[in-house]
Amino acid sequence: MDRVSSSKCFGGEQAVYKHSSAETKCDMRFSVFTPPADIHGKGPYSTLFWLSGLTCTEENFIIKSGAQRIAAELGLMIIGPDTSPRGEGVPDLEPKTYDFGVAAGFYLDATEAPFRSQYRMYSYVTAELPALIAAHLPTDAHRTGIFGHSMGGHGAITLHLKNQTMFRSCSAFAPIVAPSLVPWGRKAFTHYLGTDESSWAEYDSTRLLETRGASKAHILIDQGASDPYLAEQLRPQLFADAARKAGQKLTLNMREGYDHSFYFISTFIEDHLRWHRAALG
Amino acid sequence: MDRVSSSKCFGGEQAVYKHSSAETKCDMRFSVFTPPADIHGKGPYSTLFWLSGLTCTEENFIIKSGAQRIAAELGLMIIGPDTSPRGEGVPDLEPKTYDFGVAAGFYLDATEAPFRSQYRMYSYVTAELPALIAAHLPTDAHRTGIFGHSMGGHGAITLHLKNQTMFRSCSAFAPIVAPSLVPWGRKAFTHYLGTDESSWAEYDSTRLLETRGASKAHILIDQGASDPYLAEQLRPQLFADAARKAGQKLTLNMREGYDHSFYFISTFIEDHLRWHRAALG
Repeated sequence: MDRVSSSKCFGGEQAVYKHSSAETKCDMRFSVFTPPADIHGKGPYSTLFWLSGLTCTEENFIIKSGAQRIAAELGLMIIGPDTSPRGEGVPDLEPKTYDFGVAAGFYLDATEAPFRSQYRMYSYVTAELPALIAAHLPTDAHRTGIFGHSMGGHGAITLHLKNQTMFRSCSAFAPIVAPSLVPWGRKAFTHYLGTDESSWAEYDSTRLLETRGASKAHILIDQGASDPYLAEQLRPQLFADAARKAGQKLTLNMREGYDHSFYFISTFIEDHLRWHRAALG
Repeated sequence: MDRVSSSKCFGGEQAVYKHSSAETKCDMRFSVFTPPADIHGKGPYSTLFWLSGLTCTEENFIIKSGAQRIAAELGLMIIGPDTSPRGEGVPDLEPKTYDFGVAAGFYLDATEAPFRSQYRMYSYVTAELPALIAAHLPTDAHRTGIFGHSMGGHGAITLHLKNQTMFRSCSAFAPIVAPSLVPWGRKAFTHYLGTDESSWAEYDSTRLLETRGASKAHILIDQGASDPYLAEQLRPQLFADAARKAGQKLTLNMREGYDHSFYFISTFIEDHLRWHRAALG
């Protein structure tokens, strides 16, 4: 893997790396925040994977969230992958739409042509990227959590529920919790997974709770009450209802007046980092 | 003026407005952060003007700096204008370069054709915009400061030195302190102000200190020691030398390992906001 950029930030380092991915068959970038060694030593560090939402690259979170200040204090490493395969030759819809294809990989392994060859973000984030990072960076595989926003909140919860020893702690901002039932999810799953909806359950947080039961984690969700996507695309109450039935520990904070933007995320990012820090021990 | 966008952020509001400017003869946008009314009342609020650097719009600071967290705590309103006139018909070099013209107004009033008609950022930031804001927003004209980055650091210091009752406090990140002597400044001043360098002194922080003497403020400058522009374009020691001769109170912090990016700014933005808060009383 090659380091594309590096900047000192809150005494630590905000870097971006790229590598050639076997899963997505293209070059992939990811961000890495490393906390200050003079405070926290050289690791291994407790580590969080951040999954971004629709339209994002690996850059949005690191320029907009303000997470580095708290990660530097708490000694957390944060890894932020891109949201899909990217580059010439990557299949997409014509004309391109913001909610499918490039920058909209939905953290799944596609089964449908022409997407199945490269849209393998599930395997990329749960296997290839963690192995690459473990080989090169001082992460602590036993103290690793996952969080994300919107499509990335969907990714964080589904990946946690299916990989509980890999991602021990889990939180989300405005996650898509029931993609099988909402327009963003139904469009993506139809093209990536086909029209047999039984295959969709493996990538649907609410249905995973119903079929697999609760995880050991206490999941944190923050949701803006003025989020324009709340009623049609996000519907966190569906996940809260499933959590209650499944015995899943969940804190769902509805935040009055907040929308879907990084202004919302930056306001509550500190709470999430402290939540993970406490959960990972 | 029309509100283009608004998001709740740290209990306050991050908004962007636009209006038709008489000075620049085009639509101009500017950002406004308003602190939480439930903590700080409805104003008037102590106010800071933020001036951005080359290539920026009114957006860079509000998505990247993390300033809202501290401004919300301290009860500060922050106004962030665009960096130049913008839009169809605005004169520029052909081909366009990043360090002149659109997004590179250098906070001066141009005297040379074809730029003098619209490149009037000095009058815009010191007269038209403050008057507009005073008429519509709960700013406190007696408790207002100014700060900025790079080209905007140049703007902040020059505007403060020439308008000390309007901008009572002043700080900068990696400012261009001697534009008459460095490539960025010489290129801009030649095109905007002409080849008679005596006219440049009015827009050169170091020369203003020499010709007008010190201000009453204690100016704060943070500068990354690993900033790639340090030796050729920024040269803060020239300003420090002039400050010592003029009796200008100045704190110049050289920050080991930091570069020219918003990762640097975000690390030290809290120090600057607390500095202004204390200075404005």
